[in-house]
Amino acid sequence: SKSFKVAVLPGDGIGPEVMAEALQVLDAVEKKYDVRFERTFANVGGAGIDLEGKALPQTTVDICKASDAILFGSVGGPKWESLPPDEQPERGALLPLRKIFGLYANLRPAIIFPALTGASSLKEEVIAGGFNVLVVRELTGGIYFSQPKGIEGQGRERIGIDTMRYSVPEIERITHVAFQAARKRDKRVMSIDKANVLSTSVLWREVVETVAKEYPDVKLSHMYVDNAAMQLVRWPKQFDVILCENMFGDILSDEAAMLTGSLGMLPSASLAEGSFGMYEPSGGSAPDIAGQGIANPIAQILSASMMLRYSFALVEAADAIDAAVEKVLNQGLRTGDIFQDRPGERKVNTKEMGAAIVAAL
Amino acid sequence: SKSFKVAVLPGDGIGPEVMAEALQVLDAVEKKYDVRFERTFANVGGAGIDLEGKALPQTTVDICKASDAILFGSVGGPKWESLPPDEQPERGALLPLRKIFGLYANLRPAIIFPALTGASSLKEEVIAGGFNVLVVRELTGGIYFSQPKGIEGQGRERIGIDTMRYSVPEIERITHVAFQAARKRDKRVMSIDKANVLSTSVLWREVVETVAKEYPDVKLSHMYVDNAAMQLVRWPKQFDVILCENMFGDILSDEAAMLTGSLGMLPSASLAEGSFGMYEPSGGSAPDIAGQGIANPIAQILSASMMLRYSFALVEAADAIDAAVEKVLNQGLRTGDIFQDRPGERKVNTKEMGAAIVAAL
Ligand SMILES: CC(C)[C@H](C(=O)O)[C@@H](O)C(=O)O
Ligand SMILES: CC(C)[C@H](C(=O)O)[C@@H](O)C(=O)O
Repeated sequence: SKSFKVAVLPGDGIGPEVMAEALQVLDAVEKKYDVRFERTFANVGGAGIDLEGKALPQTTVDICKASDAILFGSVGGPKWESLPPDEQPERGALLPLRKIFGLYANLRPAIIFPALTGASSLKEEVIAGGFNVLVVRELTGGIYFSQPKGIEGQGRERIGIDTMRYSVPEIERITHVAFQAARKRDKRVMSIDKANVLSTSVLWREVVETVAKEYPDVKLSHMYVDNAAMQLVRWPKQFDVILCENMFGDILSDEAAMLTGSLGMLPSASLAEGSFGMYEPSGGSAPDIAGQGIANPIAQILSASMMLRYSFALVEAADAIDAAVEKVLNQGLRTGDIFQDRPGERKVNTKEMGAAIVAAL
Repeated sequence: SKSFKVAVLPGDGIGPEVMAEALQVLDAVEKKYDVRFERTFANVGGAGIDLEGKALPQTTVDICKASDAILFGSVGGPKWESLPPDEQPERGALLPLRKIFGLYANLRPAIIFPALTGASSLKEEVIAGGFNVLVVRELTGGIYFSQPKGIEGQGRERIGIDTMRYSVPEIERITHVAFQAARKRDKRVMSIDKANVLSTSVLWREVVETVAKEYPDVKLSHMYVDNAAMQLVRWPKQFDVILCENMFGDILSDEAAMLTGSLGMLPSASLAEGSFGMYEPSGGSAPDIAGQGIANPIAQILSASMMLRYSFALVEAADAIDAAVEKVLNQGLRTGDIFQDRPGERKVNTKEMGAAIVAAL
């Protein structure tokens, strides 16, 4: 029987509530398939700050290092918002995790489930039948991590400086991720840049074109980031895989996610070279509804499914989880965030949704 | 009688067609008010390349220098797309114009006219009654113009580098523009940054807060750029003035413009210190419909109105143009891009729309 080590980092807000349901789903997978998930819990984000004095305590790093993958909840909340930026839950936990574990490839699906088109702020005619975009975002380079970065000088003489830097191998490896993902989908990659202004984008475009030659079955196009921000709104169905550098991916993946209208449904994966990865919902910690047991656990459950698919190669089990989620949606089960009060819909809480998905498995 | 010198740069694609209508409107203003607009035509963009070998010929720069304002059409098209990025019409004309004339403040209104809510890809319930957002974008700093910038090294050792830099005075002056604009509107400024990642944003936020103290009647809030990309989609009415650095403003102003569904309606102003400015439609040169006489001239006409308002302080005449545009829209006149075939609508071409606006004046 196979066994995998999972570092479980529930974090703040709704994190622990939705994580509980994802763990139930892992229990169900263990029963159904010949596999074990050894789980070790660790504090992160606000929970890390409160209990161990840091958003990313060293014990948590060590637990992650001893694991095959990280299942991450969500971090942040008003309680920690007045801390210096570096120490805050999101930045203080996510950026170091990405850097320490070399999580260079961020996969963010933006999917409208056909059953949920009503939740999008886009017109029915724009999204009829749903859409399915995968944003592949470079996650350990660019303006997030390059030097020099800082504030120089004193008083009104101060100057803020950030640097956006990309090397050829950095662009190559994320491009391969995008093309390989496209091969399993509609075989189209839209590479985003600002090659009319940025030197990094000129290099980006050239390297992407060179790598693309290894994938003659996949169609490559380019689009400027400002135009992409427009085209996502105008006609999201035109996209299959969107390939972006770090900052553009941050902006466009959030825009695409919001266009689906169901942030609580969207998982994400952050992958290192090899099989290690971190898996987390795309939405935030939603402090406004935390502790009420009403959050949507689907994003966390689909994050667990991505972990099975990408880090553990348990494709059959991952497919089974995805199918179970689709089944309960088709049965009309809805947490508050996706409840529209249409015929056939039934409002459920976090635990009921989790239990229904487990049952459907 | 007052007299103003206007450099008229029609450019490419639909530029010359819509410019012709804006000039008719200026004629009408001359007749109605005691004012003269001395116009000097100059080549820019693809027209500059074809006729004088450069996207921004020196003769054009000289004509602009001798003028009180620039009325700009639009540039670019497939014909010049294979040129090196630096020489292409958009980049080769717009970036140097901004730099040479110190056009540091870009005002981009994103307005849904109540008569045109149908054209947006957002649901009727999200935009009922229209919305009115003003993006104030810093236009001569940040990652567009800072050094070092370039590609270093050879072959696979190459590294692309861009630098984002902001000084305190650069942030101060654009912040004043945003707050002064807000005073004439709903008195709310949303400053966009990525202060959880960028040092320039940390400085940006601090300087914006300091300047804001001079405007106690205006409410200041802050939002991360990724969240702003989401919130624009979710509920655009929450915004009044959006204040951004150059790159974020590029992305968000285009997203906001597309959300209105009527790009052909939106003007923009790029202002220098003092009264000099450049005025241009937010949409592009639309090569697909160029030469057919069907383009919407309203963005160009409203750009002329902004020129009267901001560079010439002809507020009454500017108000009259804006009112004339609203009147013909309420009469049901629609160019193809905004025609929905609803009761009371009448499809018109470029010249008919221009003539109707002149008549309404
Ligand atoms: C919290 C922040 C540093 C982070 C980012 O910008 O990458 C977040 O927005 C995300 O997209 O995961
Ligand atoms: C053409 C390009 C350089 C320009 C920019 O990025 O500023 C354009 O997108 C704009 O917004 O005016």
